[in-house]
Amino acid sequence: MNTRILSAELPTRGGQHVNVAGWVHRVRDLGGVRFLLLRDRSGLCQVVLPKDRDDASVGCECVVEVEGKVVAEPRAPGGFELLAEHVEAISPAEPPPLEVFKPLSASGHRLDTLLEHRAVSLRIPEVLEVFRVQAEIVRAFGEHFRANGFTEIKTPKLVQAGAEGGSAIFEVNYFGRTAYLAQSPQFYKQLMVGSGLERVFEIAPAYRAEKSETSRHTTEFISLDFEMGFIESVQDVMDTHVGLIRAVFEAVGEQCGEILARREIELPEVAEIPRVTFPEAKDLLEKKFGKTEGLAGDLDTEGERLIGQWAREELGSDLIFVTGYALAKRPAYTMPDAADALVSASFDLLYNGVEITTGSQRIHDYHQLAESFRRRGIGLDGLEWYLAAFRYGMPPHGGAGTGLERLTKQILSLRNIKEACLFPRTRYRLSP
Amino acid sequence: MNTRILSAELPTRGGQHVNVAGWVHRVRDLGGVRFLLLRDRSGLCQVVLPKDRDDASVGCECVVEVEGKVVAEPRAPGGFELLAEHVEAISPAEPPPLEVFKPLSASGHRLDTLLEHRAVSLRIPEVLEVFRVQAEIVRAFGEHFRANGFTEIKTPKLVQAGAEGGSAIFEVNYFGRTAYLAQSPQFYKQLMVGSGLERVFEIAPAYRAEKSETSRHTTEFISLDFEMGFIESVQDVMDTHVGLIRAVFEAVGEQCGEILARREIELPEVAEIPRVTFPEAKDLLEKKFGKTEGLAGDLDTEGERLIGQWAREELGSDLIFVTGYALAKRPAYTMPDAADALVSASFDLLYNGVEITTGSQRIHDYHQLAESFRRRGIGLDGLEWYLAAFRYGMPPHGGAGTGLERLTKQILSLRNIKEACLFPRTRYRLSP
Repeated sequence: MNTRILSAELPTRGGQHVNVAGWVHRVRDLGGVRFLLLRDRSGLCQVVLPKDRDDASVGCECVVEVEGKVVAEPRAPGGFELLAEHVEAISPAEPPPLEVFKPLSASGHRLDTLLEHRAVSLRIPEVLEVFRVQAEIVRAFGEHFRANGFTEIKTPKLVQAGAEGGSAIFEVNYFGRTAYLAQSPQFYKQLMVGSGLERVFEIAPAYRAEKSETSRHTTEFISLDFEMGFIESVQDVMDTHVGLIRAVFEAVGEQCGEILARREIELPEVAEIPRVTFPEAKDLLEKKFGKTEGLAGDLDTEGERLIGQWAREELGSDLIFVTGYALAKRPAYTMPDAADALVSASFDLLYNGVEITTGSQRIHDYHQLAESFRRRGIGLDGLEWYLAAFRYGMPPHGGAGTGLERLTKQILSLRNIKEACLFPRTRYRLSP
Repeated sequence: MNTRILSAELPTRGGQHVNVAGWVHRVRDLGGVRFLLLRDRSGLCQVVLPKDRDDASVGCECVVEVEGKVVAEPRAPGGFELLAEHVEAISPAEPPPLEVFKPLSASGHRLDTLLEHRAVSLRIPEVLEVFRVQAEIVRAFGEHFRANGFTEIKTPKLVQAGAEGGSAIFEVNYFGRTAYLAQSPQFYKQLMVGSGLERVFEIAPAYRAEKSETSRHTTEFISLDFEMGFIESVQDVMDTHVGLIRAVFEAVGEQCGEILARREIELPEVAEIPRVTFPEAKDLLEKKFGKTEGLAGDLDTEGERLIGQWAREELGSDLIFVTGYALAKRPAYTMPDAADALVSASFDLLYNGVEITTGSQRIHDYHQLAESFRRRGIGLDGLEWYLAAFRYGMPPHGGAGTGLERLTKQILSLRNIKEACLFPRTRYRLSP
């Protein structure tokens, strides 16, 4: 038998006999000669079918293995095609509910239809390639932090109490008592800084029982988290985050260049990321955009969009840090600003007008932390272990969390976060 | 200010003025000269305290920053010590509930005590280093698969139905209806093979509502999964798995050599992994070990241990594949053996007498799969999407899943899987 090669390798095998296996992407009959486009994980190649081959087993989406000779053909993808000598039907296919070969712009399917028929819609190359980019983001995230002395950790998602407060938390029946699904690894990653690892990162699911469906929320998402000890201020966390974004953009640019080019996306070179304080942002929104609503302590969706627009137009940056949020509006573990106890040492990062990251310096003093929880009236039931950890020498530390799907969505300018999630979960969608 | 360096860098800085920050591991008074051992993420270094320094802020586990001069001292770790000129107390510590500087063999703490005081027990170097090894396993797993054309995926853990059957599944209150926590990514990773990615891997939590506490089960664990299309038989999956184990052992050997050496562990060079069929194993257990109970379709804990012992003694291998399980004893998606329809094309991998991996070829024909579920009386409520995926051309495929904590436990010869989990979850433990 010949070596089985990937379709993308055809141009390196001119004149040779090879085998290629994959899905029938499309069948074409041109003046009595039948062609098929074969799709495998490397892309598409053109196959010229033998004259006597019957049609049944080579319908769209059938899995076949083709044996034949590679010949030059300028009109074929990559400049080469496979003259089939033998086509073996490996797995049949019924006519699929969606046409895999049609670009989405031509088929016009609604997102809900794509999600309902996920097993088929993921085969559409432009749908699937989103997840190649996502895998590269994950790889680059891990590599960047490992290269900077961070250790990867795995912390529990079944917890006794929420880390981010609020009612948006899922309950689990845990042998008759109630457990919760972690909203973030916040408390655990802080504890792991104190464990002596000093610098940690985690790539894991997080859960928010979001009642409303928006274009930027799902109930289950992958949280890209880091936390680092021995910082001087929140500035160190922001600097680390700038380095991360730079590394991710460079990696995606290098590894997914074709995908970006097809979508006419050029990722910015990240040197510095400009910043604006929340009061400045509020002032801008009022004076420049006449927006006065939806700014109670945080930017709403429209506020983020407008600040993003302003950053692009006035500062020439797709990315902007928003800092200086009121301490009372941030979680109880947030460190106050050194210069103003009513302001937090925290930040959000907006990318193309959408918040992708939240971070801060955290309180590391036991008494200050206990007081912060007390003042907000937050009970520490089930969290005694968290507070106790601060009794035994916790260095100054901080960190941030980035939503993987949001980052993917913003990098690829997708309209809805569900396009950046293989099997999204929302209030009304729990399947497939 | 001097550059802050890691304690492990002292030997490269002889004669220089540096800063080192970390935790006070131990304080010693030797003939009027006081020393402290400073612990940071790189290890320990010896600090000679200034004569006039008061004791209070340098108690065990306090966080300090030391400024001083590096001098050669043969009796210090690494051959150098730091003559402190200034010691700054960064964060105080109460006397901890466990002595961090004492080896576990000396302190004799029970595992439950270590887990209860996790924020402190993780500071014990021999407790923490387990998770450095674990992080390296995760890194090597991802790198190996990426290098072999696999794409990393993230699939949902909130699901509408279990993938592995049985009652050991957690229920989640999902906006008033019932969702479940995924027992494995099985169905989703198969679907992703069919999506055209062909080869996928996932590193993510999985859940089993295990009622009994054993030394090898937790309710939440990290499942290292892969799945690959266009295989000839289960042999391809086993070969891929051998390559994985080889890559992981090599990486851990290279990156964690000191940890292994301290524990007197030598990881085997993995060339081939021998195999035994389940009927052969059963026969061996009966004839050689007089064991007849607990072998109904699978090896029980003692059976695994004895087969592991036999493999080491008779075959000179710490690893052994067990194949040829009865089809009826494996999940409905398992492919029958090509030569015997009552036998499954599946395997378990035992390492030092404990099962760490389960894998198989899967059924890829729609009708055969539907029939397999039907024959077992398994309803496909909420799983219609899974079965439907097989209507549209699914290549022959297979894969395996390995428990990260089990693999860590076996590599480091730990007694209990909870030692290989930062914050283990069992029926009776949901905190910290």
